[in-house]
Amino acid sequence: MKLILTIVQDADAPKLQNALLEHGLRSTKLASTGGFLREGNTTFLLGVEDHQVERAKAIIHDVCRERSKMLRPLPHMSEMGPVMPNEPIEVTIGGATVFILDVEEFAKL
Amino acid sequence: MKLILTIVQDADAPKLQNALLEHGLRSTKLASTGGFLREGNTTFLLGVEDHQVERAKAIIHDVCRERSKMLRPLPHMSEMGPVMPNEPIEVTIGGATVFILDVEEFAKL
Amino acid sequence: MKLILTIVQDADAPKLQNALLEHGLRSTKLASTGGFLREGNTTFLLGVEDHQVERAKAIIHDVCRERSKMLRPLPHMSEMGPVMPNEPIEVTIGGATVFILDVEEFAKL
Ligand code: NI
Ligand code: NI
Ligand code: NI
Repeated sequence: MKLILTIVQDADAPKLQNALLEHGLRSTKLASTGGFLREGNTTFLLGVEDHQVERAKAIIHDVCRERSKMLRPLPHMSEMGPVMPNEPIEVTIGGATVFILDVEEFAKL
Repeated sequence: MKLILTIVQDADAPKLQNALLEHGLRSTKLASTGGFLREGNTTFLLGVEDHQVERAKAIIHDVCRERSKMLRPLPHMSEMGPVMPNEPIEVTIGGATVFILDVEEFAKL
Repeated sequence: MKLILTIVQDADAPKLQNALLEHGLRSTKLASTGGFLREGNTTFLLGVEDHQVERAKAIIHDVCRERSKMLRPLPHMSEMGPVMPNEPIEVTIGGATVFILDVEEFAKL
Protein backbone atom coordinates (compact mmCIF):
# COMPACT_ATOMS: atom_id res chain seq x y z
CA MET A 1 0.00 0.00 0.00
CA LYS A 2 1.24 3.47 -0.87
CA LEU A 3 -0.03 6.93 -0.02
CA ILE A 4 0.16 9.30 -2.98
CA LEU A 5 0.10 12.95 -2.03
CA THR A 6 -0.25 15.17 -5.07
CA ILE A 7 -0.60 18.93 -5.37
CA VAL A 8 -2.37 20.19 -8.48
CA GLN A 9 -3.96 23.39 -9.71
CA ASP A 10 -7.52 24.05 -8.52
CA ALA A 11 -8.68 24.15 -12.12
CA ASP A 12 -7.54 20.56 -12.68
CA ALA A 13 -8.87 19.14 -9.39
CA PRO A 14 -12.44 18.13 -10.32
CA LYS A 15 -11.33 16.46 -13.54
CA LEU A 16 -8.57 14.60 -11.70
CA GLN A 17 -10.96 13.35 -9.03
CA ASN A 18 -13.34 12.05 -11.70
CA ALA A 19 -10.59 10.43 -13.75
CA LEU A 20 -9.26 8.64 -10.65
CA LEU A 21 -12.77 7.43 -9.74
CA GLU A 22 -13.31 6.09 -13.27
CA HIS A 23 -10.28 3.87 -12.62
CA GLY A 24 -11.57 2.80 -9.21
CA LEU A 25 -9.27 5.09 -7.21
CA ARG A 26 -10.91 7.12 -4.47
CA SER A 27 -9.18 10.26 -3.26
CA THR A 28 -9.60 12.90 -0.58
CA LYS A 29 -9.06 16.58 -1.36
CA LEU A 30 -7.47 19.03 1.08
CA ALA A 31 -7.78 22.78 0.64
CA SER A 32 -4.30 24.18 0.17
CA THR A 33 -2.60 27.33 -1.04
CA GLY A 34 0.63 28.53 -2.52
CA GLY A 35 4.07 27.13 -2.82
CA PHE A 36 4.81 24.19 -5.03
CA LEU A 37 2.55 25.60 -7.70
CA ARG A 38 0.89 28.94 -8.23
CA GLU A 39 -1.72 30.15 -5.75
CA GLY A 40 -4.92 28.17 -5.70
CA ASN A 41 -4.02 24.54 -5.56
CA THR A 42 -5.53 21.37 -4.17
CA THR A 43 -3.75 18.56 -2.35
CA PHE A 44 -5.02 15.03 -3.03
CA LEU A 45 -4.57 12.07 -0.70
CA LEU A 46 -4.79 8.80 -2.54
CA GLY A 47 -4.23 5.36 -1.05
CA VAL A 48 -3.35 2.75 -3.65
CA GLU A 49 -2.08 -0.78 -3.87
CA ASP A 50 1.54 -1.04 -4.98
CA HIS A 51 0.54 -2.27 -8.45
CA GLN A 52 -1.74 0.77 -8.94
CA VAL A 53 0.99 3.38 -8.48
CA GLU A 54 1.95 3.60 -12.15
CA ARG A 55 -1.70 3.83 -13.23
CA ALA A 56 -2.32 6.64 -10.73
CA LYS A 57 0.72 8.53 -11.98
CA ALA A 58 -0.42 8.12 -15.58
CA ILE A 59 -3.85 9.53 -14.73
CA ILE A 60 -2.33 12.50 -12.88
CA HIS A 61 -0.03 13.13 -15.83
CA ASP A 62 -2.88 12.91 -18.35
CA VAL A 63 -5.10 15.38 -16.49
CA CYS A 64 -2.66 17.76 -14.86
CA ARG A 65 0.58 17.88 -16.81
CA GLU A 66 2.08 21.25 -17.58
CA ARG A 67 0.82 22.45 -20.93
CA SER A 68 0.74 25.62 -22.98
CA LYS A 69 -2.36 27.59 -23.74
CA MET A 70 -2.75 30.55 -26.11
CA LEU A 71 -4.48 33.44 -24.36
CA ARG A 72 -5.59 36.67 -26.02
CA PRO A 73 -4.77 39.33 -23.38
CA LEU A 74 -7.57 41.66 -22.31
CA PRO A 75 -7.32 45.23 -23.63
CA HIS A 76 -5.81 47.57 -21.07
CA MET A 77 -5.52 51.33 -20.71
CA SER A 78 -2.37 53.34 -21.36
CA GLU A 79 -1.95 57.11 -21.03
CA MET A 80 -2.69 57.26 -24.75
CA GLY A 81 -6.04 55.43 -24.47
CA PRO A 82 -7.04 51.78 -24.73
CA VAL A 83 -4.42 49.40 -26.06
CA MET A 84 -5.80 46.53 -28.10
CA PRO A 85 -3.27 43.70 -28.18
CA ASN A 86 -3.67 41.66 -31.31
CA GLU A 87 -1.22 38.91 -30.52
CA PRO A 88 -2.33 35.99 -28.31
CA ILE A 89 0.33 35.01 -25.80
CA GLU A 90 1.39 31.58 -24.65
CA VAL A 91 0.92 30.76 -20.97
CA THR A 92 1.82 27.62 -19.02
CA ILE A 93 -0.90 25.98 -16.96
CA GLY A 94 -1.22 22.78 -14.96
CA GLY A 95 1.54 20.78 -13.39
CA ALA A 96 1.48 18.28 -10.56
CA THR A 97 3.89 17.65 -7.71
CA VAL A 98 3.74 14.05 -6.52
CA PHE A 99 5.05 12.45 -3.32
CA ILE A 100 4.72 8.69 -2.90
CA LEU A 101 5.02 7.39 0.66
CA ASP A 102 5.09 3.86 1.99
CA VAL A 103 2.11 2.94 4.17
CA GLU A 104 3.00 0.68 7.10
CA GLU A 105 -0.58 -0.21 7.82
CA PHE A 106 -3.91 0.53 6.20
CA ALA A 107 -7.27 -0.06 7.82
CA LYS A 108 -10.96 0.59 7.41
CA LEU A 109 -12.26 0.94 10.96
CA MET B 1 6.95 7.36 16.24
CA LYS B 2 4.11 6.94 13.76
CA LEU B 3 1.94 9.41 11.88
CA ILE B 4 -1.68 8.33 11.74
CA LEU B 5 -3.68 9.95 9.00
CA THR B 6 -7.36 9.19 9.31
CA ILE B 7 -10.33 10.38 7.28
CA VAL B 8 -13.68 10.43 9.07
CA GLN B 9 -17.11 11.92 8.60
CA ASP B 10 -17.50 15.53 9.71
CA ALA B 11 -20.23 14.48 12.12
CA ASP B 12 -17.80 12.23 14.01
CA ALA B 13 -14.87 14.67 14.04
CA PRO B 14 -15.49 16.65 17.25
CA LYS B 15 -16.22 13.52 19.27
CA LEU B 16 -13.09 11.84 17.90
CA GLN B 17 -10.90 14.81 18.76
CA ASN B 18 -12.25 14.81 22.33
CA ALA B 19 -11.88 11.05 22.75
CA LEU B 20 -8.27 11.22 21.56
CA LEU B 21 -7.51 14.09 23.94
CA GLU B 22 -9.00 12.18 26.88
CA HIS B 23 -6.37 9.53 26.17
CA GLY B 24 -3.61 12.11 25.90
CA LEU B 25 -3.44 12.08 22.10
CA ARG B 26 -3.40 15.48 20.42
CA SER B 27 -4.49 15.72 16.81
CA THR B 28 -4.68 18.29 14.04
CA LYS B 29 -7.72 18.53 11.78
CA LEU B 30 -7.51 19.35 8.07
CA ALA B 31 -10.56 20.44 6.09
CA SER B 32 -11.15 17.87 3.38
CA THR B 33 -13.84 16.77 0.97
CA GLY B 34 -14.97 13.79 -1.01
CA GLY B 35 -13.52 10.52 -1.94
CA PHE B 36 -12.72 7.89 0.62
CA LEU B 37 -15.99 8.58 2.38
CA ARG B 38 -19.09 10.58 1.53
CA GLU B 39 -18.81 14.33 1.03
CA GLY B 40 -18.04 16.32 4.14
CA ASN B 41 -15.17 14.60 5.84
CA THR B 42 -12.29 15.63 8.04
CA THR B 43 -8.70 14.42 7.87
CA PHE B 44 -6.89 13.99 11.20
CA LEU B 45 -3.13 14.07 11.65
CA LEU B 46 -2.05 12.27 14.78
CA GLY B 47 1.52 11.65 15.88
CA VAL B 48 1.83 8.76 18.32
CA GLU B 49 4.48 6.62 19.91
CA ASP B 50 4.67 3.10 18.49
CA HIS B 51 3.02 1.61 21.58
CA GLN B 52 0.06 4.00 21.24
CA VAL B 53 -0.94 2.88 17.75
CA GLU B 54 -3.35 0.16 18.88
CA ARG B 55 -4.98 2.46 21.43
CA ALA B 56 -5.45 5.16 18.77
CA LYS B 57 -7.02 2.64 16.40
CA ALA B 58 -9.37 1.43 19.13
CA ILE B 59 -10.51 5.00 19.83
CA ILE B 60 -11.09 5.70 16.14
CA HIS B 61 -13.05 2.46 15.85
CA ASP B 62 -15.17 3.22 18.92
CA VAL B 63 -16.13 6.69 17.76
CA CYS B 64 -16.25 6.40 13.98
CA ARG B 65 -16.97 2.81 12.98
CA GLU B 66 -19.59 2.22 10.32
CA ARG B 67 -22.94 1.71 12.00
CA SER B 68 -26.60 1.56 11.08
CA LYS B 69 -29.11 4.16 12.09
CA MET B 70 -32.87 4.03 11.65
CA LEU B 71 -34.12 7.23 10.02
CA ARG B 72 -37.76 8.16 9.54
CA PRO B 73 -37.79 9.81 6.09
CA LEU B 74 -39.27 13.30 5.82
CA PRO B 75 -42.67 13.46 4.11
CA HIS B 76 -42.36 14.41 0.47
CA MET B 77 -44.73 15.53 -2.26
CA SER B 78 -45.96 13.30 -5.07
CA GLU B 79 -48.36 14.29 -7.86
CA MET B 80 -51.11 12.82 -5.69
CA GLY B 81 -50.32 15.03 -2.65
CA PRO B 82 -48.05 14.59 0.37
CA VAL B 83 -46.71 11.11 0.96
CA MET B 84 -46.29 10.17 4.61
CA PRO B 85 -43.81 7.33 4.89
CA ASN B 86 -44.51 5.25 7.94
CA GLU B 87 -41.52 2.95 7.80
CA PRO B 88 -38.19 4.15 9.16
CA ILE B 89 -35.30 3.17 6.90
CA GLU B 90 -31.86 1.95 7.83
CA VAL B 91 -28.89 4.07 6.75
CA THR B 92 -25.18 3.50 7.20
CA ILE B 93 -23.17 6.29 8.80
CA GLY B 94 -19.63 6.70 10.02
CA GLY B 95 -16.57 4.81 8.86
CA ALA B 96 -12.89 5.71 9.04
CA THR B 97 -10.05 5.22 6.60
CA VAL B 98 -6.71 4.95 8.38
CA PHE B 99 -3.15 5.23 7.03
CA ILE B 100 -0.25 4.62 9.40
CA LEU B 101 3.11 5.99 8.27
CA ASP B 102 6.53 5.65 9.83
CA VAL B 103 8.04 8.91 11.07
CA GLU B 104 11.79 9.18 10.53
CA GLU B 105 12.17 12.12 12.83
CA PHE B 106 9.86 14.03 15.14
CA ALA B 107 10.68 17.38 16.68
CA LYS B 108 9.17 20.21 18.63
CA LEU B 109 11.03 23.29 17.41
CA MET C 1 13.93 13.11 -0.60
CA LYS C 2 12.00 13.82 2.59
CA LEU C 3 8.54 15.19 3.22
CA ILE C 4 8.47 17.63 6.12
CA LEU C 5 5.06 18.14 7.62
CA THR C 6 5.05 20.97 10.12
CA ILE C 7 2.23 22.51 12.12
CA VAL C 8 2.70 26.12 13.18
CA GLN C 9 0.60 28.97 14.49
CA ASP C 10 -1.32 30.94 11.88
CA ALA C 11 0.47 34.11 12.94
CA ASP C 12 3.84 32.61 11.99
CA ALA C 13 2.74 31.03 8.70
CA PRO C 14 3.31 33.87 6.20
CA LYS C 15 6.76 34.66 7.62
CA LEU C 16 7.69 30.95 7.52
CA GLN C 17 6.60 30.59 3.91
CA ASN C 18 8.70 33.62 2.93
CA ALA C 19 11.75 32.48 4.89
CA LEU C 20 11.59 29.04 3.26
CA LEU C 21 11.27 30.60 -0.21
CA GLU C 22 14.31 32.84 0.43
CA HIS C 23 16.26 29.63 0.91
CA GLY C 24 14.80 28.06 -2.23
CA LEU C 25 12.32 25.83 -0.42
CA ARG C 26 8.77 25.85 -1.75
CA SER C 27 5.96 24.78 0.54
CA THR C 28 2.22 24.14 0.41
CA LYS C 29 -0.07 25.31 3.19
CA LEU C 30 -3.10 23.35 4.39
CA ALA C 31 -5.82 24.96 6.49
CA SER C 32 -5.93 23.15 9.82
CA THR C 33 -7.30 23.62 13.31
CA GLY C 34 -6.70 22.57 16.85
CA GLY C 35 -4.69 19.93 18.51
CA PHE C 36 -0.93 19.94 18.46
CA LEU C 37 -0.93 23.67 19.05
CA ARG C 38 -3.56 26.19 20.04
CA GLU C 39 -6.54 26.80 17.75
CA GLY C 40 -5.71 28.51 14.48
CA ASN C 41 -2.76 26.71 13.03
CA THR C 42 -1.42 25.98 9.58
CA THR C 43 0.07 22.73 8.31
CA PHE C 44 2.96 23.04 5.85
CA LEU C 45 3.98 20.37 3.36
CA LEU C 46 7.59 20.74 2.31
CA GLY C 47 9.50 18.39 0.04
CA VAL C 48 13.26 18.65 0.49
CA GLU C 49 16.40 16.85 -0.51
CA ASP C 50 18.01 14.90 2.33
CA HIS C 51 20.81 17.46 2.68
CA GLN C 52 18.26 20.28 3.08
CA VAL C 53 16.51 18.80 6.14
CA GLU C 54 18.72 20.51 8.71
CA ARG C 55 18.42 23.85 6.93
CA ALA C 56 14.64 23.55 6.83
CA LYS C 57 14.50 22.72 10.54
CA ALA C 58 16.72 25.71 11.33
CA ILE C 59 14.41 28.04 9.39
CA ILE C 60 11.32 26.64 11.13
CA HIS C 61 13.04 27.08 14.48
CA ASP C 62 14.10 30.65 13.71
CA VAL C 63 10.64 31.77 12.66
CA CYS C 64 8.31 29.68 14.80
CA ARG C 65 10.05 28.65 18.01
CA GLU C 66 8.16 29.09 21.27
CA ARG C 67 8.94 32.47 22.72
CA SER C 68 7.67 34.78 25.41
CA LYS C 69 5.96 38.07 24.74
CA MET C 70 4.94 40.74 27.23
CA LEU C 71 1.31 41.72 26.75
CA ARG C 72 -0.45 44.56 28.54
CA PRO C 73 -3.94 43.16 29.22
CA LEU C 74 -6.90 45.17 28.00
CA PRO C 75 -8.87 47.00 30.71
CA HIS C 76 -11.94 45.05 31.70
CA MET C 77 -15.08 45.79 33.71
CA SER C 78 -15.70 44.59 37.24
CA GLU C 79 -18.79 45.26 39.37
CA MET C 80 -16.84 48.19 40.81
CA GLY C 81 -16.17 49.85 37.40
CA PRO C 82 -13.33 49.56 34.91
CA VAL C 83 -10.18 47.81 36.11
CA MET C 84 -6.95 49.17 34.66
CA PRO C 85 -4.26 46.54 34.93
CA ASN C 86 -0.86 48.17 35.11
CA GLU C 87 1.31 45.06 34.92
CA PRO C 88 2.06 43.53 31.52
CA ILE C 89 1.87 39.74 31.59
CA GLU C 90 4.11 37.21 29.88
CA VAL C 91 2.49 34.91 27.33
CA THR C 92 3.98 32.09 25.29
CA ILE C 93 3.49 32.20 21.54
CA GLY C 94 4.76 30.20 18.58
CA GLY C 95 5.95 26.63 18.56
CA ALA C 96 6.22 24.12 15.71
CA THR C 97 5.53 20.41 15.58
CA VAL C 98 7.60 18.70 12.88
CA PHE C 99 7.22 15.26 11.29
CA ILE C 100 9.84 14.14 8.79
CA LEU C 101 8.81 11.27 6.50
CA ASP C 102 10.81 9.36 3.94
CA VAL C 103 9.62 9.83 0.35
CA GLU C 104 9.83 6.68 -1.77
CA GLU C 105 9.35 8.52 -5.01
CA PHE C 106 9.04 12.15 -6.01
CA ALA C 107 7.86 13.36 -9.37
CA LYS C 108 6.84 16.46 -11.28
CA LEU C 109 4.21 15.24 -13.71
NI1 NI D 1 4.18 13.28 -20.97
NI1 NI E 1 -15.77 -3.67 15.80
NI1 NI F 1 17.02 27.48 19.86
